[in-house]
Amino acid sequence: MKCDYSLYLVTDRAILGGRDLGQAVEDALRGGVTLVQLREKDTSSRDFYQIALALKDLAVKYQVPLIINDRLDIALAVDADGIHIGQEDLPLQVARCLLGPEKIIGYSVSNIEEAVYGEKYGADYLGAGPVYTTTTKAVTIQPLGVEGLRNIKNSVSIPVVGIGGINLDNVREVKKSGADGVSIVSGILGSLDPDCTSRKLCEAWQQG
Amino acid sequence: MKCDYSLYLVTDRAILGGRDLGQAVEDALRGGVTLVQLREKDTSSRDFYQIALALKDLAVKYQVPLIINDRLDIALAVDADGIHIGQEDLPLQVARCLLGPEKIIGYSVSNIEEAVYGEKYGADYLGAGPVYTTTTKAVTIQPLGVEGLRNIKNSVSIPVVGIGGINLDNVREVKKSGADGVSIVSGILGSLDPDCTSRKLCEAWQQG
Repeated sequence: MKCDYSLYLVTDRAILGGRDLGQAVEDALRGGVTLVQLREKDTSSRDFYQIALALKDLAVKYQVPLIINDRLDIALAVDADGIHIGQEDLPLQVARCLLGPEKIIGYSVSNIEEAVYGEKYGADYLGAGPVYTTTTKAVTIQPLGVEGLRNIKNSVSIPVVGIGGINLDNVREVKKSGADGVSIVSGILGSLDPDCTSRKLCEAWQQG
Repeated sequence: MKCDYSLYLVTDRAILGGRDLGQAVEDALRGGVTLVQLREKDTSSRDFYQIALALKDLAVKYQVPLIINDRLDIALAVDADGIHIGQEDLPLQVARCLLGPEKIIGYSVSNIEEAVYGEKYGADYLGAGPVYTTTTKAVTIQPLGVEGLRNIKNSVSIPVVGIGGINLDNVREVKKSGADGVSIVSGILGSLDPDCTSRKLCEAWQQG
């Protein structure tokens, strides 16, 4: 499946401070987000499923892929376009085997070794980070920086999306690393106007 | 799939106080447990998968079915015999659709309405409870008692397993309700000798 990874939204309801997730995601889609990943932690499977169903409708409406973080069962249940898995999730080969060759599988990496492993075992793209320091996840890993992101990009032939602390101020710099896109959580959903913010990020990426 | 639901072990690592789950489950299997459900909360998908793989080996060795609580993806990943879902998990029809007709699906119910729903939408068995007050789960539901369990059993034609506060002292009483088995968490894993405890529970059930 050919994807435009340039502006990849990852959800985090905690950031919304009570604002509606569906509304915020739709605003971001209107602003030009090219891919949506639903990320839920500490949510019942029933709630996760219901939220995924709602985002699936939005993804279809705006014709962008919907990716589910970690939970392959939720992805199957709503016929999402794929999943995104990290080092603590199902093994890549197991996920590929269960999802089949058509669905998208993204893989989180923070060094070249993991990147090469991800490409070898069937990931369609890599989420590489953290590029910068970020407050979204409690991460103890040293940020890659743009140079580290470039090294990862140069080590594989599949698309690489940078994640972690990316915003309007540094999106052009990330693009210069050769990355295929930017994956953004708080930079979009933490903004009170996700539509406008996404639009500006899109422009910055395209001009960068 | 025909099952012996008589002594159904449900795991809870918190109860083990550091003892090894695989060892405790194997002890219980040696003692006569007829079915094992792996229940994990707040565990990464990778760890859940690894634990499930280990219990799958034990289940094959002792020729009992392995059921995974909630996580259909983990069940698929280790080719478990089925899943057990509750009111907060994936909808029953969705789970049946994804698992196919051969796998076992258990459904947690606490009243006749849920029991009838469960049978109608494809559950293979029901876990009905809490029969007695229990400390394993933070439950606010009034215990069914043996009478409530009997009423649920009489409302459906699929097997019904009682759960919640069942132990050596009351297992015969539960059997008299007409239930097809007892589902036990702390009554077995909370014991320092799961083998001996399971053996006594088995005998009590058979004599009950």
